[in-house]
Amino acid sequence: MGSWKETRMEEVSYVSGETRIFGIVGHPIAQVRSPEMVTAELVRRGHNAILIPIDVLPEEFDACLAQLMRVGNLDGLIFTIPFKQAACRLASALGEQAQRVGVINALARGRDGWVGEVFDGLGCVEAFRQAGHSFANQRVMLIGAGGAGRAIAFAIAHEGPKSIRIFDIDADRASRLAESLAATDPKIDARFGEPTVEAIDILLNASPVGMLSDPRMPIEAERIPPSVIVFDAIVKPELTRLLALAQQSGCRTLFGRQMMHGQIRKVVDHFERHNGTLA
Amino acid sequence: MGSWKETRMEEVSYVSGETRIFGIVGHPIAQVRSPEMVTAELVRRGHNAILIPIDVLPEEFDACLAQLMRVGNLDGLIFTIPFKQAACRLASALGEQAQRVGVINALARGRDGWVGEVFDGLGCVEAFRQAGHSFANQRVMLIGAGGAGRAIAFAIAHEGPKSIRIFDIDADRASRLAESLAATDPKIDARFGEPTVEAIDILLNASPVGMLSDPRMPIEAERIPPSVIVFDAIVKPELTRLLALAQQSGCRTLFGRQMMHGQIRKVVDHFERHNGTLA
Repeated sequence: MGSWKETRMEEVSYVSGETRIFGIVGHPIAQVRSPEMVTAELVRRGHNAILIPIDVLPEEFDACLAQLMRVGNLDGLIFTIPFKQAACRLASALGEQAQRVGVINALARGRDGWVGEVFDGLGCVEAFRQAGHSFANQRVMLIGAGGAGRAIAFAIAHEGPKSIRIFDIDADRASRLAESLAATDPKIDARFGEPTVEAIDILLNASPVGMLSDPRMPIEAERIPPSVIVFDAIVKPELTRLLALAQQSGCRTLFGRQMMHGQIRKVVDHFERHNGTLA
Repeated sequence: MGSWKETRMEEVSYVSGETRIFGIVGHPIAQVRSPEMVTAELVRRGHNAILIPIDVLPEEFDACLAQLMRVGNLDGLIFTIPFKQAACRLASALGEQAQRVGVINALARGRDGWVGEVFDGLGCVEAFRQAGHSFANQRVMLIGAGGAGRAIAFAIAHEGPKSIRIFDIDADRASRLAESLAATDPKIDARFGEPTVEAIDILLNASPVGMLSDPRMPIEAERIPPSVIVFDAIVKPELTRLLALAQQSGCRTLFGRQMMHGQIRKVVDHFERHNGTLA
């Protein structure tokens, strides 16, 4: 004779019918790290929510996203390679940074539509803020004027630095970025410049030089003045040759992973700000 | 001076870029129990997989599902109210039960398309099997010839019972079900009959009588012969009045929750059978 008390089955505690769904959209998708990290931040803030990987083929992106965004309990999306440009046209409104940079990497479902924002640069600024450093009145050397460098430049420009010197192996790209920074605010002293560790307060690497097994340094130097704060946007390896030199020189350092964490906090702030269900 | 060892952020362990996604599609969706239960069964079997709730408006079902099913890491779907009928047209192939019953409640991504199957009845048979009971050569009394009753009848018919007596307050519906059972196999002795606890071996309630605060019994009886095995498909309450009477009478009993668990096992079997990624 069976008892109804014996009929329990195992259940997981981290997903239910009430869970709000977030996604990271990319192709391929297996390598992304947002699911475990953004979900942890959502849960840490007390939300019944999860961020899942969503693998969409580039040629199916528009049709697929149009329908995905109609799923009633889907509240936000993050976009990774190769969709950072394409995602822009899905937004019904753009945040302050996205308007300047012209790309987005996250969309939050708001009351009146989907609000896009870009967090690469904001994540960098947030990492500095968390470490107790400010860009205000600082002389910044930025290496790399590609996607990440561009987002970082616009976010820093907003923080009132004394000057931003930008280098890229594509000198035109660096000059164009400097010009567009100046166009948003004529008070910003932004210009192209060769890499240097002298007469600067903050050194930022947003170029891919030093990534993975690349043994190079983005800057030629045997020592960095110890007053310089050195940041490298590269996540793998965590301790790049540039950061190792900075530590040997007695500099304060910030890691790519810290920017990533800053991004995650800012992305979840964005979701919370716009979603009624997370408020 | 920061160390890169200090830059760890919390991560959850239950979702990553490699997680395979499953979903339950319905409207509304907050009340469903599959996410916590099916996910637990997937994880228990060693899969990096999760089943999430997916809330789709009925008028958007066709367009939305067509695109959802193109998401590369989405491997299976379960359908609940109001989509059990509509889901049928999404399948490129139907399992054995689905062909007979004419509805599906799950789709698995297979090599050559999406394979639909219905698990209400198979879950009931599985619950009996797990409890050590067989339908072979048994005299079955089935009450209720709606969606659940229909699926249960077809699944039981496959198990070689001696006879199936079917009652429904809509006598026509019960007779039609008996006829369609006989049509699939002329050897099956299936016919309409008033509810009885005499001259039967197994009593099944697949009607909603006794659900939630409904105080009624699906059968008029003050005692049930103790040799009869009594099953009630109702999940809430777990111990229906029918099952309480059966226990008082010394009968062996099976609960709605046991059928639900049987369904979950069979659904995950179905996903494993068809998905290369779970094999």
